[in-house]
Amino acid sequence: MTDLEAGREALLDHVEALIAQRGGVSITLAELAAAAGMSPANLYRFFENKEALYEAVAERWFAPKVRAMEEVLASDLPIRQKFYAFYARRLGMICDDYARDPALFRSYLELGQQHIEIVRGFIDLADHFLAELIAEAIAEGYFPGLEIDSAVSLVNLMLQTFCDPELVVMLIHSVSEEKLAIVVDTIFDGLRGDRPSNVRRLTRAAR
Amino acid sequence: MTDLEAGREALLDHVEALIAQRGGVSITLAELAAAAGMSPANLYRFFENKEALYEAVAERWFAPKVRAMEEVLASDLPIRQKFYAFYARRLGMICDDYARDPALFRSYLELGQQHIEIVRGFIDLADHFLAELIAEAIAEGYFPGLEIDSAVSLVNLMLQTFCDPELVVMLIHSVSEEKLAIVVDTIFDGLRGDRPSNVRRLTRAAR
Repeated sequence: MTDLEAGREALLDHVEALIAQRGGVSITLAELAAAAGMSPANLYRFFENKEALYEAVAERWFAPKVRAMEEVLASDLPIRQKFYAFYARRLGMICDDYARDPALFRSYLELGQQHIEIVRGFIDLADHFLAELIAEAIAEGYFPGLEIDSAVSLVNLMLQTFCDPELVVMLIHSVSEEKLAIVVDTIFDGLRGDRPSNVRRLTRAAR
Repeated sequence: MTDLEAGREALLDHVEALIAQRGGVSITLAELAAAAGMSPANLYRFFENKEALYEAVAERWFAPKVRAMEEVLASDLPIRQKFYAFYARRLGMICDDYARDPALFRSYLELGQQHIEIVRGFIDLADHFLAELIAEAIAEGYFPGLEIDSAVSLVNLMLQTFCDPELVVMLIHSVSEEKLAIVVDTIFDGLRGDRPSNVRRLTRAAR
């Protein structure tokens, strides 16, 4: 780690302490400088502006989740296990983070809502990884008749409650690894687009 | 409709106008009386307290959805169609309500968050209806090996994005009747609890 990186990490610890104290209220660079006993000019060496600071905060929050997704993608697990692990590792992290300090976790969620354009970048990255997994599954014959994009959208809709931190926290007593495993099996055994939906066909006939 | 009911309906129109004007801020009985050109004592004949007023507001918002669920349950559609219609009718209503007046819709969502104990009653009712549908499906051989409660929980997790108004609005460009039909087919074709999950078995073996 360079001195610059070490300095940034130490400052991000101060940011976390401020978030823990004050909740999900945006922190100004002047406040951070004061908390860190540093001049604003000196702070500027580490973070050019508030935007850069919040990108670093988000980066630190998402980094272990991104690393887990990358590790799973690079692994040689069979596709169904890979898919499960892709969600289970993040679910485990979210539940652990929340259990460690529920108030701090909620403050991060509030900050995320205030900086949705930064969060969006990480959601897009997760979608990109998911598309890779789904392409691998389709190549093995799963999800017959579905394009990658449609399958990504359908899987996101079905698994949103297991990976959106906001929803996981809302449903914390309902989600579990066991249920995730059953849902992943349901998707691998049941999701297809190669025949007109039974439901739609019969619903239309009934009209 | 009795005079009392007609009076309540007229007052609820005033409430909606106030919500449309002011957003999701709680309205006091004094404010409502003023808006309706009525004395607080007279208003008291229609709504005993703020709680009763908000129950009536929620009741009016949920009534068409509850009616749709009841109609679907009482219909003689095949179970898969029934299940689809149970969600599709509410999804259609939510999308229509939102399209008619997005700001008003968001204000109702905010009010719902502030009166979560009232909303909870309607969520429990929907769960109760869902349990009936799932019992019917299990009796026909679907979801082998799953208890009704487990199946309700799993189905709720997979279909949350198609029925929670907050999520539907967040994902309005992603959800559709077509996707709902595919997800319902996925659940009917793939959801089961009668063998150890493929995923868990292999994940455990890999540890």
